[in-house]
Amino acid sequence: MSNFVTVNEVGPRDGLQSQGKTLSIEERLLMIDALLDSGIRSIEVGSFVSPKAVPQMAGTGELFKLLPMTDAVAYSALVPNLRGYELAREAGVRSVAVVLSATETMNQRNINMSLEQTTAVCAELMQRAREDGIQARAYVAVAFECPFEGLTPPSVVEYLTQRMFEAGADKVIIADTIGAANPRAVREVLERLATPSAAGQLSCHFHDTRGMALANVLAALECGVREFDSSIGGLGGCPFSPGATGNLATEDLVLMLDAMGLRSGIEPLALVDAVQRVQALTGTPLGGHSFRWLDRQAGKRQGGSHV
Amino acid sequence: MSNFVTVNEVGPRDGLQSQGKTLSIEERLLMIDALLDSGIRSIEVGSFVSPKAVPQMAGTGELFKLLPMTDAVAYSALVPNLRGYELAREAGVRSVAVVLSATETMNQRNINMSLEQTTAVCAELMQRAREDGIQARAYVAVAFECPFEGLTPPSVVEYLTQRMFEAGADKVIIADTIGAANPRAVREVLERLATPSAAGQLSCHFHDTRGMALANVLAALECGVREFDSSIGGLGGCPFSPGATGNLATEDLVLMLDAMGLRSGIEPLALVDAVQRVQALTGTPLGGHSFRWLDRQAGKRQGGSHV
Repeated sequence: MSNFVTVNEVGPRDGLQSQGKTLSIEERLLMIDALLDSGIRSIEVGSFVSPKAVPQMAGTGELFKLLPMTDAVAYSALVPNLRGYELAREAGVRSVAVVLSATETMNQRNINMSLEQTTAVCAELMQRAREDGIQARAYVAVAFECPFEGLTPPSVVEYLTQRMFEAGADKVIIADTIGAANPRAVREVLERLATPSAAGQLSCHFHDTRGMALANVLAALECGVREFDSSIGGLGGCPFSPGATGNLATEDLVLMLDAMGLRSGIEPLALVDAVQRVQALTGTPLGGHSFRWLDRQAGKRQGGSHV
Repeated sequence: MSNFVTVNEVGPRDGLQSQGKTLSIEERLLMIDALLDSGIRSIEVGSFVSPKAVPQMAGTGELFKLLPMTDAVAYSALVPNLRGYELAREAGVRSVAVVLSATETMNQRNINMSLEQTTAVCAELMQRAREDGIQARAYVAVAFECPFEGLTPPSVVEYLTQRMFEAGADKVIIADTIGAANPRAVREVLERLATPSAAGQLSCHFHDTRGMALANVLAALECGVREFDSSIGGLGGCPFSPGATGNLATEDLVLMLDAMGLRSGIEPLALVDAVQRVQALTGTPLGGHSFRWLDRQAGKRQGGSHV
């Protein structure tokens, strides 16, 4: 099984979209600079949603045109619908992601469409992206539990994942939107999906609401998954899910991968600086469970200035 | 494999021993009351060390005589040497634990003895306890990494564990004293030790310094371990190990076990009250990663008073 794990940073999208403070385009660019400086090479930059609904994401097209462009970095954007997709394509986005919530109520509350309508729209978008030579990614959200409907049947997640792959999705991201997963549930879902041939096309997105995000990552690693979303400093939450506090912090994920001898291309201590820069930009206290320890180590390396 | 997992609460010993504030015997009793009320049934009550060295643990013999005595609760105490063992036995302690650090330097710094001396003393104590009909438990400390010597060879941990079992230990507790373990290292150590016949005699003690404690628990569960130490609200650290912040919080451990369908006999929400009572007693801000979520759930159940 591969020794390399892709860490997909979602702070600039999932993190910022739930913040009270709306960052300017320039500030969002500074945040991405901080992420790049720390060695992160896969970034969800923003979303092409209505600026009225999510003002934090206004101007994502403009932001994309200003991004440092190098082949080594994979930038992506979330698109909610065909209009968002067209805007993303026009802005030169090379990788798009759609969100398909696994329950009826979540789709209604989130985007005012039925599950079947959303599935059809997402399938169409996957197909369009494929035709346009754009990488197509699909989130299956509330894949473990829905705040409105309770536990999500693994069979539904399996069905929706298959639908997305059939429609041409390059990757499906199993998302624990409200931080309700546990290692056993992760295994139950992934054992259905992560066949040796499909594992490489799966990713997981965990929230740390109940403190189990890293244990869930471990369960997913054991099932062969080699890509995870995380957010620098744990920035974010889910604005539509009361009680969903905090994405899995990038530094916690990277530190565990590093400690286990898995490669992510990111040096754990390099993330301390990124956390501090993003904290200054957002004005939000940041830092995953390992941050205090990492900060101390980084300080030692610099000659004790942080101790 | 067994569905039942023993949660051994070490807050009254490992938690309190590193606190600035020294609790009175009565306050320590109130703490244990709070733990019992939350459903905890295995408690490390204190240690029989020199009150000069560790004033927080003075009067542990007196405390033992005041404990609510019921067959359903397993109380234990740490004993550093033969003198401590005699004091514990006189106080009516039915289960003692010794600490055997896996490296030369840690033993020297901790108790001013060589590794071989400590091993001999611990072996003798295990044997004595066995003869006296007292449960004998041995911690193998710094089992993954030592703050002075770096990574601990798994072969050393294996050797010391065998020595303790040969000397009559009923249980050996593999302790990540400074929170440096990771799931891969846990597997490496436990695959040597946790044979089907021996797994039931092993326990693990993780610190959450690097945020990986629950992931390490998962790895240990997968190796067949069915007992874990934890500390209410994450109280504590290791006074001898700079940078070792926080034991694994009992509420985080219990919540994950519960979510995975494993039984501990403890209801996760019942721990909220215990965390709050122990916080009031110690004057230390407490709460594991899941505490905010648990507190909110407990509030909802009581009619929204916490929301």
